[in-house]
Amino acid sequence: MTESGPLDIERYCRETGRRAREASRALAELSTERKNAWLRDSARSLRAHLSRILAANADDVRRARDAGEPPAMIDRLKLDEPRVEGMAKGLEAIAALPDPVGEVIEGSRRPNGLEVTRLRVPLGVVFFVYESRPNVTVDAAAICVKSGNAVILRGGKEAMHSSRVLVDLMAVEAERHEIPPFAVQLVGPAERELVGGFLRQPEFIDVAIPRGGTGLIERVVAEARMPVIRHHDGNCHVYVDSSADFDRALAIIDNAKCQRPGVCNALESLLVHDAIADRFLPRLAERLAMHGVELRGCQRTREILPTALEATEADWRAEYLALILSIRIVDSIDEAIEHIAHYGSKHTDAIVANDVDAIRRFTARVDSAAVMVNASTRFNDGGELGMGAEIGISTDKFHARGPCGLRELTSYKFVCVGDGLIRS
Amino acid sequence: MTESGPLDIERYCRETGRRAREASRALAELSTERKNAWLRDSARSLRAHLSRILAANADDVRRARDAGEPPAMIDRLKLDEPRVEGMAKGLEAIAALPDPVGEVIEGSRRPNGLEVTRLRVPLGVVFFVYESRPNVTVDAAAICVKSGNAVILRGGKEAMHSSRVLVDLMAVEAERHEIPPFAVQLVGPAERELVGGFLRQPEFIDVAIPRGGTGLIERVVAEARMPVIRHHDGNCHVYVDSSADFDRALAIIDNAKCQRPGVCNALESLLVHDAIADRFLPRLAERLAMHGVELRGCQRTREILPTALEATEADWRAEYLALILSIRIVDSIDEAIEHIAHYGSKHTDAIVANDVDAIRRFTARVDSAAVMVNASTRFNDGGELGMGAEIGISTDKFHARGPCGLRELTSYKFVCVGDGLIRS
Repeated sequence: MTESGPLDIERYCRETGRRAREASRALAELSTERKNAWLRDSARSLRAHLSRILAANADDVRRARDAGEPPAMIDRLKLDEPRVEGMAKGLEAIAALPDPVGEVIEGSRRPNGLEVTRLRVPLGVVFFVYESRPNVTVDAAAICVKSGNAVILRGGKEAMHSSRVLVDLMAVEAERHEIPPFAVQLVGPAERELVGGFLRQPEFIDVAIPRGGTGLIERVVAEARMPVIRHHDGNCHVYVDSSADFDRALAIIDNAKCQRPGVCNALESLLVHDAIADRFLPRLAERLAMHGVELRGCQRTREILPTALEATEADWRAEYLALILSIRIVDSIDEAIEHIAHYGSKHTDAIVANDVDAIRRFTARVDSAAVMVNASTRFNDGGELGMGAEIGISTDKFHARGPCGLRELTSYKFVCVGDGLIRS
Repeated sequence: MTESGPLDIERYCRETGRRAREASRALAELSTERKNAWLRDSARSLRAHLSRILAANADDVRRARDAGEPPAMIDRLKLDEPRVEGMAKGLEAIAALPDPVGEVIEGSRRPNGLEVTRLRVPLGVVFFVYESRPNVTVDAAAICVKSGNAVILRGGKEAMHSSRVLVDLMAVEAERHEIPPFAVQLVGPAERELVGGFLRQPEFIDVAIPRGGTGLIERVVAEARMPVIRHHDGNCHVYVDSSADFDRALAIIDNAKCQRPGVCNALESLLVHDAIADRFLPRLAERLAMHGVELRGCQRTREILPTALEATEADWRAEYLALILSIRIVDSIDEAIEHIAHYGSKHTDAIVANDVDAIRRFTARVDSAAVMVNASTRFNDGGELGMGAEIGISTDKFHARGPCGLRELTSYKFVCVGDGLIRS
């Protein structure tokens, strides 16, 4: 941002949007080869400029420490050689994915001879607002451009120096491959009003994707004058049916809760069928105690596990993102389904069961982006579901649901060919 | 509506929404057979109760005449035996379409053995706001329920008696086939605030679909707290390239402009390549004179067609919905594409050309829901494109673009099956 002051924000956002719109028109026609060459050369450039990246990142980390940011945030922010290598590998992986642009989604010849083709096209311009992890900057730029979209990146201020260097390195490679210069624009982080300014540009921005806390997401949904893909909270459940295999259930709960408790597809609430609760819960408590998981249970749970704390209404709604698990005993699978409908966030919910009718009922009735059967909630992830990289995991039902990869950043158009055909 | 007064509107909308949400959960699991039986029996019932429908409609028509409504609106409102038969046939056609719910969109087995299936599911609850044609009531109810959604219908007040009888007849058949009683709710038309009340219920309504004038659509977009599928204006273009076959061009323009000038996929602006303008335009003027089309042209057009009126900036933006055509001569296909990008509404745009490179350029660069090649703009229609019935033609790029049929009223979910799989 070269200008400043409140009066210039609207103009800055419009100008940035206008450039992105222009870039998007060229991007829509860019060949797959050129996009992939840019991605691969960007990977090479990241590796070649490791020390420059680490120096900028050290600057970010120092400021974050001075500002008293918590250790978890500093850990997410901090780069080292393996993490930069991870970013470079990520770029190469996106280069290896099929190009969604131009894909024929379906086609037919109508009885009158009209040839109808539904073709995949980019959405246009993405406005991405995200937290302070530098690798997200690289991923988002790559995913948007590979899917033919221009992107305006508004990352957390804590990672600004790191993100700036990364975007600059990718811009040098973009120029070499004749990628439009405004395909990826990283915008100044200082002004909070900047986000509002972009959200008022439906003419230039086709979709806003917020990733972060509830406050940010609610603000974007309230202010956006364009569609929004929300990456909202994951209050994920595992339901252990009376027909469940205990060893499977234990392994899945352990994995879903403990492997990476701070992510959106981690387990938060456990529902256990009454018929097995008194045999299953003691084994579970023993297993989770090894990881230091705090248990909070309903009244019946606490009769079986007296050391569990009392779960309140707030616990059923909580996305802990920490080593805490709420547990409720249910009398039937329908009670479990009702609980998930009432308290869940439609992100990821799992059943552990051997009974095929229970599985059918659960998968049909639970209205979540991903329903897992005898598998960990942690699998709701673009890479794990076979979609490759993702820009987020949508908790919306509209347009994109679940992992939001290359295809989810596209629309389509109908191309219809006749030989002078008219409608009768 | 049994209650009244401004204080009750919020409650009424919430209660209606809550019932729709409940119905939608049952609808999502309803068998295709039951939905189709309901549709076929509803068709039978419409035919059997012809005189009752016509009596209610006569009431609507009388009130509309007394209110001084224009003849075109009365014509859209008025039912007769062939129109009721058309509605019944429409229901049978929707019964014959494949059920989108449960369709496997894609599936794969991941290297770790996880079986991933992307399944089509209903969106949930549709809030449909539309104009005063009784047949739209029947179509919308049928399309929403067939795609597994509950619908809240808010039709124009002019057709209220007709719509009420039609919905009541369908409700009787719904009861016979155990379709949830609140699957289709027709809501009171009187209060304008009612629309606002529903638009504030994102908890109960998954998508709002407005169909009508610009004022209504802008209002819905501004107030809706849920996603919106816009059925907005169609400022449709035909570009006649220098390589065009004149006879094809004449037939297509005649059809696109004159066959049904009042609909959204009718032609509004014609772009003609300079190299052929002096030979083509006189023939066109002669042909369109037969239909009494008023021509408004750019300066160069008026040098060739002196009787054409002068086109102003407003003409390039106008959706006339009448026998008026604006004409502009362009120096190149790129100028035509630029004109469409600047003034068009991304609805339907056509090229008439024999040169394959011109066709490629036009179809790649024109960013419209439907791009027609040597075919009339009038083909942008669910039936013509092979999608069956439609609830509208989306002018959005997000979620649904172009004709909005059964599939466009769905979302999807991932169902993932393992045998105790955990993420490593």
